[in-house]
Amino acid sequence: MSLRERLAPVWWEHHAVGYIDQRRLPHEVRRESAANLDELIEAIRTLAVRGAPCIGIFGAYGVALLRASIADELQFQAAAERLRQARPTAVNLAWAVDRILASSDMLAQAHALAGEQVAVDRAIAEAGLELFGKGMRVLTHCNTGALATGGEGTALGVIIAAAAAGKKPQVYVDETRPLLQGSRLTLFELAQAGVDAILQVDAAAAISMQRNAIDLVIVGADRIARNGDTANKVGTYGLAILAAHHGIPFYVAAPRSTFDFALAGGSDIPIEMRAEHEVTSFARTAVAPEGSVAYNPAFDVTPAHLVSGFITEYGVLRPPYGDALADLESRPSLGALLAVRCASSERAR
Amino acid sequence: MSLRERLAPVWWEHHAVGYIDQRRLPHEVRRESAANLDELIEAIRTLAVRGAPCIGIFGAYGVALLRASIADELQFQAAAERLRQARPTAVNLAWAVDRILASSDMLAQAHALAGEQVAVDRAIAEAGLELFGKGMRVLTHCNTGALATGGEGTALGVIIAAAAAGKKPQVYVDETRPLLQGSRLTLFELAQAGVDAILQVDAAAAISMQRNAIDLVIVGADRIARNGDTANKVGTYGLAILAAHHGIPFYVAAPRSTFDFALAGGSDIPIEMRAEHEVTSFARTAVAPEGSVAYNPAFDVTPAHLVSGFITEYGVLRPPYGDALADLESRPSLGALLAVRCASSERAR
Repeated sequence: MSLRERLAPVWWEHHAVGYIDQRRLPHEVRRESAANLDELIEAIRTLAVRGAPCIGIFGAYGVALLRASIADELQFQAAAERLRQARPTAVNLAWAVDRILASSDMLAQAHALAGEQVAVDRAIAEAGLELFGKGMRVLTHCNTGALATGGEGTALGVIIAAAAAGKKPQVYVDETRPLLQGSRLTLFELAQAGVDAILQVDAAAAISMQRNAIDLVIVGADRIARNGDTANKVGTYGLAILAAHHGIPFYVAAPRSTFDFALAGGSDIPIEMRAEHEVTSFARTAVAPEGSVAYNPAFDVTPAHLVSGFITEYGVLRPPYGDALADLESRPSLGALLAVRCASSERAR
Repeated sequence: MSLRERLAPVWWEHHAVGYIDQRRLPHEVRRESAANLDELIEAIRTLAVRGAPCIGIFGAYGVALLRASIADELQFQAAAERLRQARPTAVNLAWAVDRILASSDMLAQAHALAGEQVAVDRAIAEAGLELFGKGMRVLTHCNTGALATGGEGTALGVIIAAAAAGKKPQVYVDETRPLLQGSRLTLFELAQAGVDAILQVDAAAAISMQRNAIDLVIVGADRIARNGDTANKVGTYGLAILAAHHGIPFYVAAPRSTFDFALAGGSDIPIEMRAEHEVTSFARTAVAPEGSVAYNPAFDVTPAHLVSGFITEYGVLRPPYGDALADLESRPSLGALLAVRCASSERAR
């Protein structure tokens, strides 16, 4: 069974959407089910299910579940809208919900969307390979692997594929406070994949770039505006500044579905503010004095000029992004793309 | 009782050196004693006692304790040398041990050193006041208050003094992973002083600078080379880069005893590497998969060109640092300085 199959983060059950409760990783791979709207929203809001593409697939199956269980059309539409808004920053959730709503067979469409993500991730991983020389030191942030997409992952998928291709990357992973997706999830996935990694606190990124001679930074994304401004896990913007300061290439790996062509720039991307207790306590134990106030944005926005390139299923896009992203927007849907690819690989034989 | 007195981090006891075990803050103010060399070193290494000036004072009392308990001269010298090397980065420990060793009445000299730090901190706090306009937003990292010096503190002393002077600073505090000196200690001290503060994860510094319009960053230091390169808690170097990127002034508050005039530049400062479990576990609970490897430098070095100025007991020093620090080196000892100050304030009456 492949890593992707073993760590499938969401799946369809008969009267529910199944998921791995990612809050319990790496200690326990506990599988749960969401059987109604409240449970779907709860799983998303608590980050039991997380990762922009994965939330999209979960939302897609969620709409199919709502459709099967809510007969009244107005009630169904209202429920789908609540699900659509469960988390505001990642565009994949709204994109997936809209796509399912527009289809006639919602469950079949959700399955198709999940399947496409697998193909998209594979294409992203292949596209990213060109960035790797042998033994390069690569730094990543948060978790962007199988758990985040249901496929091979985006940024982490690229890194694991490079390892599989014999590039022997030395992987540095930011722990990614406050919820430690780096320590808990990325190190777990890398261990499962047999790829060695070195964990560091987020604040060690600058000295790590300086002293460990980091060659490359690759991160994922939650929403990318038409000009290339990129929302991703809080800390990404700082990493991009540090990378630029040290002359280190900084790449964003993301599927076309993470691009929000309706937004002109990053200032239009809503940034989710999360509960203060994520910062003031740890594993339910307070670390700050009682009554402490915290600023806890879940994401930040990296301006496009700090991004060396976007690794997409259509290849690596480079500046000027106005042209490259207009071109991306005009590309056929993935279904069409896959058809073309299959045809050309048939021709090549 | 003043904040400084209530939170005195180290003190002399008859046959021991007393200290607050800072690992237990903010939940418990537990007072402990170190009665021999092993206990002195253990308290320093485990960060029960921490903060560059505070370690210096603890080391000074430690030498007095060793002198009182070890009759054999060679054994005493060897013990003092081990104490001197308990932690490598902060220069204050070695500086204090050497100063005590060179004196005839070691305990009196240790008391003098502790008393001087109080006066030095006051002078630093007064010097820093010129940086504050009304309502400015100031970001700090780690803990540099009473707990770190035994006086009012360095960077945090400046901030609290500005609040006391009616400047109403809005204080943002980095939690400072891995050991959370920001959440645990700095928020605790600010609450004790009645100064409102906002906690954030270290990775939120960049978005905080961008969106919360931070006006000023002030941090402490563990060792400053002759050219102004500054070793401080890991994350400081990154903060300095982020501050420069956003055009935010970045100041280092430190006493003359933190300057190591024997070192030409930051590359000569030894960086302490600490245990991996500080990163891979949290409050004794593993957060990363078993067998995970971590890179855990306790400090980093900020090059002088990223420092807007040094807030010292001799005022705010500004570039070019070659001249300013040569001038600092040539200054009289604090004892002499205080004598001059008292005389001039007498004359002023």
